[in-house]
Amino acid sequence: MRSVTHGMREGSIDQGSGRDPGRDAGRSRSLWAWGWRDRFPDAAARGGLVQLARALLPGAEPALQALPPGHDGEPEVPPPAVAVPDALAAFATQAPRDRAMCTRGRAFPDLIAGFAGDYAGAPDLVARPRDAAEVARVLEVCADRGWACVPFGGGTSVVGGVDARLARGARAAAVALDLAALSGVREVDPTSRLARIAAGTPGPVLEDQLAAHGLTLRHYPQSFEHSTLGGWLATRAGGHYATGPTRIDELTHAITMITPRGELATHRHPGSGAGPEPARLVLGSEGALGVITEAWMRIVPRPRWRASASVAFADFTAGVAAARALAQSGLAPSNARLLDGHEARLHRVRFDGKSVLLIGFESADHPLGAWLARAVELARDHGGEIVTGPIESDDASRTGVAGAWRQAFFDAPSMQSALLSIGVMSDTFETACSWTQFPELHARVTAAVAGALAETCGGGVVTCRFTHVYPHGPAPYYTFVGALRPGGELAQWRAIKSAASEALAAAGGTITHHHAVGRIHRPWYDRERPPLFGDALAAVKRALDPHGILNPGVLVG
Amino acid sequence: MRSVTHGMREGSIDQGSGRDPGRDAGRSRSLWAWGWRDRFPDAAARGGLVQLARALLPGAEPALQALPPGHDGEPEVPPPAVAVPDALAAFATQAPRDRAMCTRGRAFPDLIAGFAGDYAGAPDLVARPRDAAEVARVLEVCADRGWACVPFGGGTSVVGGVDARLARGARAAAVALDLAALSGVREVDPTSRLARIAAGTPGPVLEDQLAAHGLTLRHYPQSFEHSTLGGWLATRAGGHYATGPTRIDELTHAITMITPRGELATHRHPGSGAGPEPARLVLGSEGALGVITEAWMRIVPRPRWRASASVAFADFTAGVAAARALAQSGLAPSNARLLDGHEARLHRVRFDGKSVLLIGFESADHPLGAWLARAVELARDHGGEIVTGPIESDDASRTGVAGAWRQAFFDAPSMQSALLSIGVMSDTFETACSWTQFPELHARVTAAVAGALAETCGGGVVTCRFTHVYPHGPAPYYTFVGALRPGGELAQWRAIKSAASEALAAAGGTITHHHAVGRIHRPWYDRERPPLFGDALAAVKRALDPHGILNPGVLVG
Repeated sequence: MRSVTHGMREGSIDQGSGRDPGRDAGRSRSLWAWGWRDRFPDAAARGGLVQLARALLPGAEPALQALPPGHDGEPEVPPPAVAVPDALAAFATQAPRDRAMCTRGRAFPDLIAGFAGDYAGAPDLVARPRDAAEVARVLEVCADRGWACVPFGGGTSVVGGVDARLARGARAAAVALDLAALSGVREVDPTSRLARIAAGTPGPVLEDQLAAHGLTLRHYPQSFEHSTLGGWLATRAGGHYATGPTRIDELTHAITMITPRGELATHRHPGSGAGPEPARLVLGSEGALGVITEAWMRIVPRPRWRASASVAFADFTAGVAAARALAQSGLAPSNARLLDGHEARLHRVRFDGKSVLLIGFESADHPLGAWLARAVELARDHGGEIVTGPIESDDASRTGVAGAWRQAFFDAPSMQSALLSIGVMSDTFETACSWTQFPELHARVTAAVAGALAETCGGGVVTCRFTHVYPHGPAPYYTFVGALRPGGELAQWRAIKSAASEALAAAGGTITHHHAVGRIHRPWYDRERPPLFGDALAAVKRALDPHGILNPGVLVG
Repeated sequence: MRSVTHGMREGSIDQGSGRDPGRDAGRSRSLWAWGWRDRFPDAAARGGLVQLARALLPGAEPALQALPPGHDGEPEVPPPAVAVPDALAAFATQAPRDRAMCTRGRAFPDLIAGFAGDYAGAPDLVARPRDAAEVARVLEVCADRGWACVPFGGGTSVVGGVDARLARGARAAAVALDLAALSGVREVDPTSRLARIAAGTPGPVLEDQLAAHGLTLRHYPQSFEHSTLGGWLATRAGGHYATGPTRIDELTHAITMITPRGELATHRHPGSGAGPEPARLVLGSEGALGVITEAWMRIVPRPRWRASASVAFADFTAGVAAARALAQSGLAPSNARLLDGHEARLHRVRFDGKSVLLIGFESADHPLGAWLARAVELARDHGGEIVTGPIESDDASRTGVAGAWRQAFFDAPSMQSALLSIGVMSDTFETACSWTQFPELHARVTAAVAGALAETCGGGVVTCRFTHVYPHGPAPYYTFVGALRPGGELAQWRAIKSAASEALAAAGGTITHHHAVGRIHRPWYDRERPPLFGDALAAVKRALDPHGILNPGVLVG
């Protein structure tokens, strides 16, 4: 971990993140930490965080301190290996900060490298095509010259999905294809509830522009503030709906993807049964098959009615049973999140070790009293104690526990960066399994991670929540926290990540419910994926990207 | 059309359809017509049908008559081109009736050929593997010898998806791989609501065996009585849910498919975000990529509560608006079927030209009063007149208009065969489009089909209903009826089918919402499919079926 701090240049313009001058003019992204630079806590706040961390990790007291806040000045990037080709000159740059911003995502190893100011792997140039033809031109240049091309959206991958150094490998150069200039809602069909949206549109811009029509996509991944529609599609993002259409897949009508062999635009029907579904090959392609440039998305009117309750369970197992009953009820709540006692404490929801189930309904069409009443009845049937609610409102406001939870949810990734800067490792991993498998999976995973934390960090905390619940099983989401040893951070993280991933695989959970594969999950993905599906995907890759220039090392090859 | 009738052999055992001796012992499938042989109407009933048809098609009176009931005796099949290989001897047959039964599906051209007793294209042998290893052995033999292999489930394809003659092409032989011996519910996990079911299981057997556990798949395509789980998966069948999980895709947890290169078993997670979804490549593969042998399906308890209403609209456009409001309400009715005035008359629901919207809810968890009340309110807001209901029941019985509709729904394919036998062509086609596109699509399609009927049949009837409705558009389903000219039947049908398909393509509808592609829809599928997705699919085909033996001519190649 780096020990010398470069001064922050107040007011400098971050060209690499200037996606929406209208909304966030003058605001810039941190070079290394999650999110807005001005959101990173100051020295006093980080001092307070040290006190909290000491309480959380009693054995680690001496190591915890507010380190310098990490490198966020002018980055030191190596000279580019190639010049900007004439064909790309109108929309490409080699400015150091642009190259640094597109070097990597925000996985824990990325944070460590960024905190240390390491930009040795920066892409040789950043192209910001302004239309589909310019995207095609970038791919053409890369194919001609054998350069790697990394499609770059919000840069928020937590799985090594964007990594210029690893994509380059032995190639002559790596190009970051930044989709920032392809932004905005381009067409709205309110009758059919569809909107054509450019792939580089970040979450808040997308929602602001739809709101002007009284509409919304209602897809809020935790990265919402910075990630883009194209990134959500490429990684099959999970949104805020805890049941039903949890994943961006279900909100997708049609996708346009530019491949090195040309455009692939999937059909625009609300449902076609003509052969395997083309969009489903694009969803989850993680930049390895093509560059998603725009999509028709399924949108809805903004909700007018909400109903919510929160329920406490003395016993996590009872909370799990209640969550299952709710997921299997057919009531389709928009929110059904279960926090175990540790998670409730970590997120300051409650401090008595009880589990909490957050239940919420929303509708643009009708009041939700009958829905919530039955959900609360189910929770009570499983021994739940109603803490707040039932609350019904018709002004679409978010209040109470759910509102606080929502804010903490969006703040969590920033917190991870801040914790790193005081010598604390925190990270999350997630999976999905059947209800039948869950008890054993949970026991194995928490034991494996607690054991790894004890061994590598001298102790720590593991918490669990359900981010999504299906009639057939939950998507458990784990957070772990432990003290870092200066110089050994990456090895510590790897030991714990590996223990967690091995435990998931052994217990039959998937390596990822919504974080995607990237490079970090690749070894377990390769074991989980049916080998013949791997062959099929490799054949598709050869058909669409014959020179293998797109995001090399991701998914196939 | 054939003019000499072979006598039916009463009580003969139909080896090719003996899928469930326990349920339908002694009952056999018609060699040419849809469904059970004993369901085919007798001479008196067909005489009555002639009277009805004369009323429906006044211009066609002289041509209509009860022809002989079609060939259903011992079929005349050509000698097989090859002998049964030793490796398959334990589970293959060349009995004429077995070969005849596996010759083709039940598309209109199939009915014409079958009615004429034409089995010149019969497969050279029928293999009925009893386990996955025997399936693999069939594929191995076919790959070694360059024989075509046609996976055969219920044989109910209405799009030429199973056709031994066309699959054989210039190959030395065609093998029908009949999945009849792979039948039954094999494992049930009630906690996670999952069941492992063999692919050759026909609908009624599947439901009977799940019912023993108090469970149900609740997937009722119109072919339900005879089609199989594997066929539903391979063709992305549409079920009886009119909204929400309308398609078998959504009820699928994991699929096992045997390819010529080995087994591809997709993951068993309620939701994984690890790369493109493997199961989505298998769904809709129509026997061209592998043989589906079993699947884990998502099941539910049998419903305890139902609520329903039927609503009449003087104006079809108002009915469409009401259907849209219902589909966009978030109420998720299990039934939301709109019949236009012609369809209501044809199905004897009402005779005054008004459109009818059937609304139904079902739940195993809660009463549905609030749901139905809001649905009825929406229908009234659009000028609907409540005809029956709101009816609520807690005994899961089906009554009234919906019950009558359901029976007519399952009887319709039998009616098609019976009409053919009195000289009347009736057939259906379906599509999906956005709500915005629907008015123009509907106008173009009905005009094109009415014009083609006038030209080729001297008049006829076109009706429309919505089988499924999505927030983003309906799945309109058209029925056309006209008089046949002896000797010109196929040309008549082709002219109308082609006019309909061209109109759909021109208006932006898909060539199929749930009937699949097969060979009949292939020209329009090739135009509708993104060319690069076609390349990707061809690459997958080469990777999984390198000798191109599986269902040649379907989807790719």
